[in-house]
Amino acid sequence: MTAVELPLAGMKVLDLTRVLAGPYCTMLLADLGADVVKIERPGLGDDARAFGPFLPSGESAYFAGINRGKRSIVLDLKQDADRETFLKLVAQADAVVENFRPGTMESLGLGSEKLRELNPRLVYTSVSGFGRTGPYRRRPAYDVIVHALGGLMSITGHEVERPARVGSSISDILAGIYSALAITAALARRAKTERGGDLDLSMLDCTVAVLENAIVRYGVTGEVPGPLGTRHPSITPFQAFRASDGPLVIAAGNDVLWKTLCTVLEVPHLVADPKLATNKLRTENQPYMEGALQAALGRKSVADWLALLEKAGVPAAPIQNIQQLMDDPQLQARDMWHTLTDRDGLELTTPGTPLVLDGQKPELGGTWPRLGEHQDEVLAEWLR
Amino acid sequence: MTAVELPLAGMKVLDLTRVLAGPYCTMLLADLGADVVKIERPGLGDDARAFGPFLPSGESAYFAGINRGKRSIVLDLKQDADRETFLKLVAQADAVVENFRPGTMESLGLGSEKLRELNPRLVYTSVSGFGRTGPYRRRPAYDVIVHALGGLMSITGHEVERPARVGSSISDILAGIYSALAITAALARRAKTERGGDLDLSMLDCTVAVLENAIVRYGVTGEVPGPLGTRHPSITPFQAFRASDGPLVIAAGNDVLWKTLCTVLEVPHLVADPKLATNKLRTENQPYMEGALQAALGRKSVADWLALLEKAGVPAAPIQNIQQLMDDPQLQARDMWHTLTDRDGLELTTPGTPLVLDGQKPELGGTWPRLGEHQDEVLAEWLR
Repeated sequence: MTAVELPLAGMKVLDLTRVLAGPYCTMLLADLGADVVKIERPGLGDDARAFGPFLPSGESAYFAGINRGKRSIVLDLKQDADRETFLKLVAQADAVVENFRPGTMESLGLGSEKLRELNPRLVYTSVSGFGRTGPYRRRPAYDVIVHALGGLMSITGHEVERPARVGSSISDILAGIYSALAITAALARRAKTERGGDLDLSMLDCTVAVLENAIVRYGVTGEVPGPLGTRHPSITPFQAFRASDGPLVIAAGNDVLWKTLCTVLEVPHLVADPKLATNKLRTENQPYMEGALQAALGRKSVADWLALLEKAGVPAAPIQNIQQLMDDPQLQARDMWHTLTDRDGLELTTPGTPLVLDGQKPELGGTWPRLGEHQDEVLAEWLR
Repeated sequence: MTAVELPLAGMKVLDLTRVLAGPYCTMLLADLGADVVKIERPGLGDDARAFGPFLPSGESAYFAGINRGKRSIVLDLKQDADRETFLKLVAQADAVVENFRPGTMESLGLGSEKLRELNPRLVYTSVSGFGRTGPYRRRPAYDVIVHALGGLMSITGHEVERPARVGSSISDILAGIYSALAITAALARRAKTERGGDLDLSMLDCTVAVLENAIVRYGVTGEVPGPLGTRHPSITPFQAFRASDGPLVIAAGNDVLWKTLCTVLEVPHLVADPKLATNKLRTENQPYMEGALQAALGRKSVADWLALLEKAGVPAAPIQNIQQLMDDPQLQARDMWHTLTDRDGLELTTPGTPLVLDGQKPELGGTWPRLGEHQDEVLAEWLR
């Protein structure tokens, strides 16, 4: 099998990002073949290098997991000499990505306008909590802040009084993926126009962009959407239930599947129940439906029900924890686990890439950079 | 202000997708300027046209919210004449996107290989629940199934016994955004190589790709991550609390912010408390920390605390519901609400795009297509 030509092969990315949203973005660019060079501050580097959990070597596994395939150099952008080096690198770069608070790069004399004047083909991207404009633009943003402000927390969990945060830092990560999309699109445009571009992404905007259903529901019904546990707002049954030994989810989105489900669960009388005859009625009478199915589901184990439901063609699944997930045969077949190896040969399993191009996953970076590890190498290559 | 040239202007996309993951992907492509033509089956069209909530006109608001700016034609791909028309369109297309179960397009004689043979510049993309390969490839997938299998449900919510689904269909939507990224990247590659590409995206892979932190935590500690309510696994305090009249979130991720927070809350003795001296200790003693802060926070209202915390520079926010979200001044300033208007002049507010390019948001499609609305127009334009 010959290696697939990666879409961003040959693209040079200067990566000033720290912590999560920005580094997730540049990880995606590196996965797609770009040459990503992290520019880190002297001493500490990317803040995430100090975030747990830590490997036996003392290095941050948090950092390792989102910085594969990048290189690292150290520059102090407050010092003239380093700022000059930075500007020389910018002249060679295809993209610059940063996730400082808006205004920080300008205060260093390195704002988007200045850099694009120096290099009109440059795609400049800022990723921030709230974007460069608007009343919140200067506010600090953490994932939980954006989760809360952005409405996502209010519709996640079981009770209005007890909202829940998504178990991963999805507001950061969404901003990372959207930024990678925007940068890739701007590079595609440059292939036609020879002009770079200026991108301004906000974690809050990206969080709101995934609320499609809740927003239109509110618009149409006037009812403020609340948390629905494991349920879907308009498809029923579509939720978790408890079998005799644990939980499982069942999604029977139409009347045929509903009848099949009732047959499998040996509650055929429910098929004729007028309160449950259509999806609309089942949604309106969801607590009643849940009670009736729950009583039946308690009679067998998760494994027994899943075998019966699969045979009958009713979509159902176990609720896998992270350990079970890592043993899942589908993810192993899809090569979704990527092993990083540090300089001492220590291995760390991380999620790989979901991008399958021409039948192959791109070959991902096998390790993460130490602070400043590639200083001489990068400067020699980029500025030769 | 002159209109920004959109990155995918001039790109022709044939969109065979239904429901959510695929349509979300092609909405992003349309937002980026592509000419997206939905190909729908006779009679019902995209299944989502039958999903509530419904507008007074009887049309689906669910469908409207994710199909702006696209056009619709009707083809019956099981009929020879329509299949021939489809192949003529493929010859003119830059991309084809479908989210059938793997094998469906092949069984119609319209698989990726055949279409790319006909048009070597074509970028063919399938988005499915589990991908084209692996033991689950034929299984039906709904968001809740992938949420559950993919580990995300096991780390969302408050109790292990009572996991929660993310309040939006994030497994579908992540697959949609990742697919848009993959297609845009393949189009960028084509600009250099003149070759199209073949993309195989899976909702399960995309869900696992956002679990970075949980996976490495498990790898390093051997402890299976569970749901954390509103908390962060390694930053404390970073969670929701209750003020006298409702909840708010506070994120004080370092020792300086912790001290400031204690001062603002008028619990200065906690600064000297050895159980809470560092972020690591606060994380280990989180229940104790939560109890101590909670007692203080009950003394004032959300608005009062937010004013005091903002003044002191401690990141904090209200937990906004969807109604409050739509009144938020930041989102209004960022132009994040997009009004769709149907043929009768009825308006529906939806989330706009988070993409800000060269200081502007792309102009988004102002309406959604009726089934087959653009049949003659598209065939005349594309096949002239």
